[in-house]
Amino acid sequence: MRLDELAREIGAELDGDGSAEVNAVATLEDARPGQVAFLANPKYLKQVETTQASAVILAPTVRVERRPVLRMKDPYYGFCRAAVLLHGHRKHPHAGVHPKAHVESSANIGGNTIVYPGAYIGANVAIGRDCIIYPNVAIYDSCTLEDRVIVHAGTVIGVDGFGYATHEGVHHKIPQLGKVHIESDVEIGANCTIARGTLETTRIGAGTKMDALCMIGHGGQIGEGCVIVAQLGMAGSSELGKYVTVAGQVAISGHLKIGDQATIGGRTAVMFDVEPGAAVIGTPAMPAQQARRVYAIFTKLPELQDRVKTLEEQIKELSESGDTPPA
Amino acid sequence: MRLDELAREIGAELDGDGSAEVNAVATLEDARPGQVAFLANPKYLKQVETTQASAVILAPTVRVERRPVLRMKDPYYGFCRAAVLLHGHRKHPHAGVHPKAHVESSANIGGNTIVYPGAYIGANVAIGRDCIIYPNVAIYDSCTLEDRVIVHAGTVIGVDGFGYATHEGVHHKIPQLGKVHIESDVEIGANCTIARGTLETTRIGAGTKMDALCMIGHGGQIGEGCVIVAQLGMAGSSELGKYVTVAGQVAISGHLKIGDQATIGGRTAVMFDVEPGAAVIGTPAMPAQQARRVYAIFTKLPELQDRVKTLEEQIKELSESGDTPPA
Amino acid sequence: MRLDELAREIGAELDGDGSAEVNAVATLEDARPGQVAFLANPKYLKQVETTQASAVILAPTVRVERRPVLRMKDPYYGFCRAAVLLHGHRKHPHAGVHPKAHVESSANIGGNTIVYPGAYIGANVAIGRDCIIYPNVAIYDSCTLEDRVIVHAGTVIGVDGFGYATHEGVHHKIPQLGKVHIESDVEIGANCTIARGTLETTRIGAGTKMDALCMIGHGGQIGEGCVIVAQLGMAGSSELGKYVTVAGQVAISGHLKIGDQATIGGRTAVMFDVEPGAAVIGTPAMPAQQARRVYAIFTKLPELQDRVKTLEEQIKELSESGDTPPA
Repeated sequence: MRLDELAREIGAELDGDGSAEVNAVATLEDARPGQVAFLANPKYLKQVETTQASAVILAPTVRVERRPVLRMKDPYYGFCRAAVLLHGHRKHPHAGVHPKAHVESSANIGGNTIVYPGAYIGANVAIGRDCIIYPNVAIYDSCTLEDRVIVHAGTVIGVDGFGYATHEGVHHKIPQLGKVHIESDVEIGANCTIARGTLETTRIGAGTKMDALCMIGHGGQIGEGCVIVAQLGMAGSSELGKYVTVAGQVAISGHLKIGDQATIGGRTAVMFDVEPGAAVIGTPAMPAQQARRVYAIFTKLPELQDRVKTLEEQIKELSESGDTPPA
Repeated sequence: MRLDELAREIGAELDGDGSAEVNAVATLEDARPGQVAFLANPKYLKQVETTQASAVILAPTVRVERRPVLRMKDPYYGFCRAAVLLHGHRKHPHAGVHPKAHVESSANIGGNTIVYPGAYIGANVAIGRDCIIYPNVAIYDSCTLEDRVIVHAGTVIGVDGFGYATHEGVHHKIPQLGKVHIESDVEIGANCTIARGTLETTRIGAGTKMDALCMIGHGGQIGEGCVIVAQLGMAGSSELGKYVTVAGQVAISGHLKIGDQATIGGRTAVMFDVEPGAAVIGTPAMPAQQARRVYAIFTKLPELQDRVKTLEEQIKELSESGDTPPA
Repeated sequence: MRLDELAREIGAELDGDGSAEVNAVATLEDARPGQVAFLANPKYLKQVETTQASAVILAPTVRVERRPVLRMKDPYYGFCRAAVLLHGHRKHPHAGVHPKAHVESSANIGGNTIVYPGAYIGANVAIGRDCIIYPNVAIYDSCTLEDRVIVHAGTVIGVDGFGYATHEGVHHKIPQLGKVHIESDVEIGANCTIARGTLETTRIGAGTKMDALCMIGHGGQIGEGCVIVAQLGMAGSSELGKYVTVAGQVAISGHLKIGDQATIGGRTAVMFDVEPGAAVIGTPAMPAQQARRVYAIFTKLPELQDRVKTLEEQIKELSESGDTPPA
């Protein structure tokens, strides 16, 4: 693809000669002639002048010597677009349901959906169009997926919620009568587990992206457009609003509400509701600004303790000198 | 089923007319006529009067206007029983070993046990009666499961323990000669991993329930009737007693003993033995009461630091005024 | 095998009669005649005299009465060697690619490699010689494994990195064009996920051992000979040096460098680079010595707060007494 064509396709302004042919995206460091790189992080600014890339995608305000450059407001999005145009997404080795997958006869799978070998699609499951179900995914009975949902290998959807009634020392299993519903354009990473509700539907909202090894408890409600990094554990009946960002290894207790556009920092343990737009972090979760102060003091607790010790000695001295009546 | 019949079956006392037909359980909020709801959490008391449910299961002491109600000591257990009676547990789409599962010829599988597609049952494995092995479970060689064990999708039982002898910079794999034994009525969530012992048997006691994404290290001993929430990591050779409760994302170091009926709070890091009946929480694990005080101060460390600063200023002032000899 | 022969094979010095036949390894506690035990942890010294084992492998300096003993510098390595000699590693129930596995036609699998039922080997994957791919492993397209790599059940290699360009409220998937390369003699536990790089190769260095349920983000670089305990979450583009030890449930943020031979304690949250040879622990990660002091004070925060309270009262008293002018 010619550079001027690429610029037009990704919505960038071409600054310099647009006649070069480009066929791949690459990092500034690794790019060779014929490849296009991008600058999203100012830390790598110097590499823009030294890269062998045929062009660099960068923001309108970045001042560089090299030409040609492709200028656009959101260079990372530009890179994404270029990657899709020049490379495309994965080419699947087979279409439709692979014979080594197993789809129960009552399940319904939409057009252009791919089911990889080893995937299991339970009874009465309904999957929309253009979905990708990677190898060894298991979708329990009655769960529903809308369109363009991607489920990575090993993920389990609709497993029974963890619900027992303990009576006279026996944990009696409560039938898990709800299901899981996954809206369109959701992507779920590898080896996640999403439990069906006891009575209600566990829901993952449209456009939400979830990384690997996350665990969503029974009846969880996840809004649209959330970004959830790996290893989240979210207990039953909690609710994430829309466009919530959850960093890695977070824990969310049960029956909580996390407001729209909240941000939950890495390794946070959320034990109370979180307001819309709030940023929390820590164990237990605190407003981010408070948490930064708390952890700064925490790592210097020995100094704080030393200060207290010094005070105790000073007080002792002062008290003793006070015992002696002034001359 | 008539309401009076349901009352009799679940061991509740019917208060009001028992002639209504009920066919489903539901939450107080969602229930419609013909459905039975329950009140286990007093928070929802008001909904008892407004629900459209045909009947509500609740405790003998709860004072409500609406009739009919089904009164019993443990309404949550009543709900569980009603759910089993009215809905039953999952109806499986096929019986026995599915042809898309793989069972090594030396394995032995008991009557009425279901093995879903994609499950792998290794050499010399023995599985009892009435078990359910969901899709893509892998059970390594020689492991044994008693009766009515449920293993959810993607779980791996009997994987090699993480054991190496490091010698001259090389980590030499130690053959993992033990196995895993799972007693009756155990349920294991999705995508868990349970390692076989190096020399000994890793054991999960009868009636224990474990949620998703838990990791049990080699030689771990888990007693009867434990309840283990998601994402536990339990290092090798540790031992849980009977009826231990473990909340989500807990870590348990190796070679520890957790006594019977202990309770381990969410996200706790257990680094020492825990006494029977004790409740611990925190990183590191502390008695629950201590932990509550510690974390309360922790989140207010900036205030504690400010108090120290104020003291330092006051001391300085006092000392200086003391330097000036009194008139 | 005769004991003197075993001694010779494992490189131990026989002290006592070497004519006994031994056929198994066992713990000091469980060993019966005909079995050989070992003492690696001095805690179990007393059991050396009482064990029924036919011989005990122990260090040259340990003083015991019982004979015969096999003395060598590294008794744990001796035990490992004896276990391999007397028991060997797992005997696999079938050779080569099992018909219930699925290998895309463009994949290449080396001699003597075993692929268990339910495993999925994607397009253009290359696997070397003598590897073991356990059931329900999924290896995405174009990933490469060298020789003698062991991948345990349910692990996913080469899943798409978690990369999106968010533009006008939509998270656009970035094609993940890199791959995963796993060097020789690596062992990966069950249900791990290793993401392919966006543009680069995610690499696991030769001889590294990783336990279950670990998550390696896109573009991660793990050096040779690392030992990684369960449930690690390592964000994208971070780098472990050689011979790094990572304990359980660790989190490593993105774009960090962990130096060679560093040690990361259990449950640590690494948020900054770690120097070669350093030992860090805690949330956030601190030098181990500092962390020990910090956590010791942390668990006693109520006492520290009480000391501050006492100081405040003393100061108040002193100030008030100071208000009264001396007689």
